[in-house]
Amino acid sequence: MTSNNTLSEQKMPDLDADHTPVTVIGLGLMGQALAGAFLRGGHPTTVWNRTAAKAEDLVAQGAKLADSVGDAVAASPLVIVCVSDYDAAHDLLDPLGELLDGRVVVNLTSGTSRAARESAEWAGRRGATYLDGAIMAIPPAIGTADALILYSGPQSAFDLHAPALRSLGEGATYLGEDHGLSSLYDVAILSLMWNILNGFLQGAALLGAAGVSATTFAPLAKAGITTVADWVSGYAQQIDDGAYPALDATIDTHLASMEHLIHESEFLGVTAELPRFVKALTDRAVAAGHGGDSYAAMIEQFRKPSAEHS
Amino acid sequence: MTSNNTLSEQKMPDLDADHTPVTVIGLGLMGQALAGAFLRGGHPTTVWNRTAAKAEDLVAQGAKLADSVGDAVAASPLVIVCVSDYDAAHDLLDPLGELLDGRVVVNLTSGTSRAARESAEWAGRRGATYLDGAIMAIPPAIGTADALILYSGPQSAFDLHAPALRSLGEGATYLGEDHGLSSLYDVAILSLMWNILNGFLQGAALLGAAGVSATTFAPLAKAGITTVADWVSGYAQQIDDGAYPALDATIDTHLASMEHLIHESEFLGVTAELPRFVKALTDRAVAAGHGGDSYAAMIEQFRKPSAEHS
Ligand SMILES: NC(=O)c1ccc[n+]([C@@H]2O[C@H](COP(=O)([O-])OP(=O)(O)OC[C@H]3O[C@@H](n4cnc5c(N)ncnc54)[C@H](OP(=O)(O)O)[C@@H]3O)[C@@H](O)[C@H]2O)c1
Ligand SMILES: NC(=O)c1ccc[n+]([C@@H]2O[C@H](COP(=O)([O-])OP(=O)(O)OC[C@H]3O[C@@H](n4cnc5c(N)ncnc54)[C@H](OP(=O)(O)O)[C@@H]3O)[C@@H](O)[C@H]2O)c1
Repeated sequence: MTSNNTLSEQKMPDLDADHTPVTVIGLGLMGQALAGAFLRGGHPTTVWNRTAAKAEDLVAQGAKLADSVGDAVAASPLVIVCVSDYDAAHDLLDPLGELLDGRVVVNLTSGTSRAARESAEWAGRRGATYLDGAIMAIPPAIGTADALILYSGPQSAFDLHAPALRSLGEGATYLGEDHGLSSLYDVAILSLMWNILNGFLQGAALLGAAGVSATTFAPLAKAGITTVADWVSGYAQQIDDGAYPALDATIDTHLASMEHLIHESEFLGVTAELPRFVKALTDRAVAAGHGGDSYAAMIEQFRKPSAEHS
Repeated sequence: MTSNNTLSEQKMPDLDADHTPVTVIGLGLMGQALAGAFLRGGHPTTVWNRTAAKAEDLVAQGAKLADSVGDAVAASPLVIVCVSDYDAAHDLLDPLGELLDGRVVVNLTSGTSRAARESAEWAGRRGATYLDGAIMAIPPAIGTADALILYSGPQSAFDLHAPALRSLGEGATYLGEDHGLSSLYDVAILSLMWNILNGFLQGAALLGAAGVSATTFAPLAKAGITTVADWVSGYAQQIDDGAYPALDATIDTHLASMEHLIHESEFLGVTAELPRFVKALTDRAVAAGHGGDSYAAMIEQFRKPSAEHS
């Protein structure tokens, strides 16, 4: 049985579009949030966790705690896995053999695109249909309109279970057949998130040294973040076009402000490591002739392998 | 005459709250946008630029082009300066002597907090009231509800000219009496912006190497950015409290995903320089005992002087 063509032929218990029984394996911070959202969405929900105590709240909310991973998988046509890493996921599922046959396994564990593709092959050999997913939200946002969750793998499986998956977040987004896509988008967006947070922390440290609290800075930081959110589509167009007209500010103008940031940081005694790193990248863009271009021209500094710069 | 107490006594031409005559000195990308917004706001607008040709469009829209900086300053009680740097601003205004007396000079040129404080003293010696400002917006946003512009210096001057300054953007925000504040917030927010853009570029480079266009990535990147915008107030509270409970994800969990990002980057042949930098910062937070804390605990890596790490 391949993973792509037999969903409609499968015999599954009670496959009601809105109340598909689901199993959640892994009840860490995220797994608990996922199971809680399924329960609130009216799905009969079976859970399993290595440390059974973490199921207590969920059982109180109506979840069924399975005695073993096998029992958990057997309970539902749709099996969600959310553990620390792919090795842990494999250790749990690999011994199950035939039990996976005919089920849809959605792996929301973070990993690499390569591990996702390998898992898809592994699941296919066991007769399971495999979707890989990436959660771009924190546990408290799960089940809300704000929760963005990305899926990749066979579209038929996504379409079949989209109503259930939307219980986890309105932003259930299908990326394509390549199982690796959700992991790739995952790290791309996480990278963006860490950089945003680091930028915020740098600013908070700087203003903190000048006596401004982080909570005072936060609303203006939020306004700044929201402003940049509106720029990315324009910069993306420039990147795809390979032309970077400075309709807003030139890289030279940015560079001058980067020097101010370094001076302020040194003056106030906070680390200028990140600002210096950002400026070094920008210096290279100027050296490559992009001083008069928009910030989008910096893409070339990200595409090049590091070896060229060291 | 000091900069703080004589605004109400000044004799100024036609100081109508909504139609205060304004002068804009410096007509680069930003200065042109500022003058254009004043014109649209119904302010008699005098302009001057070293390269006079850049005034042409504005003159066609109704601006008056002054023959000299002195004539420009003499034309209005409110003088906006927006040139490349503070040295240029001083070179232009320093020779004017008495002409500045009794006027409000708003310097929207980017610079350091120290240069802003020095400029305030300099302006005070000439009898001018000085506000320093920082524009957290790109030229096309000037005059719209989205344009965040920060001001610091005497509150009386800000309050007096707030109606005119709001022609440049609804988000005219007064930070406090310390003239250095707008420059500090400026670099803090710019730093945030560069980091957001770098995070986006890293993601675009990575997905680009996998055949996904930047414009395909952009909407999801935007969703990711918007998501993080909602996290900063919570993290700010943790920073101010000095306690970092991992209500969402632990630094250990982030670190595992950072390793995935590095692997994906290496696998696809894009530079992993920024991801490695971010991971190195995070490794230090884990080494300092913060692996089980929220990302807000990373603030300690930004506060420390660089010397401690090298
Ligand atoms: N938290 C977030 O904000 C967030 C956001 C997006 C994605 N994610 C991803 O979601 C996944 C889970 O994250 P989390 O925050 O829930 O982590 P967590 O709180 O540390 O929980 C880890 C889970 O994995 C289980 N586990 C680990 N190793 C195992 C093994 N060898 N055998 C069986 N179970 C094992 C743990 O079981 P025990 O309880 O027995 O230890 C626990 O259920 C990760 O891949 C993470 O990157 C998390
Ligand atoms: N553009 C943005 O997105 C943006 C955003 C926020 C803040 N800012 C800040 O706004 C300021 C201006 O930026 P911009 O984008 O308008 O830069 P720009 O397009 O490069 O324009 C620079 C302006 O400064 C003038 N100038 C420079 N040196 C001078 C000198 N020695 N004497 C007289 N005039 C001189 C230039 O006159 P000429 O025309 O004769 O060269 C021009 O009017 C900068 O401090 C920048 O950081 C810009």
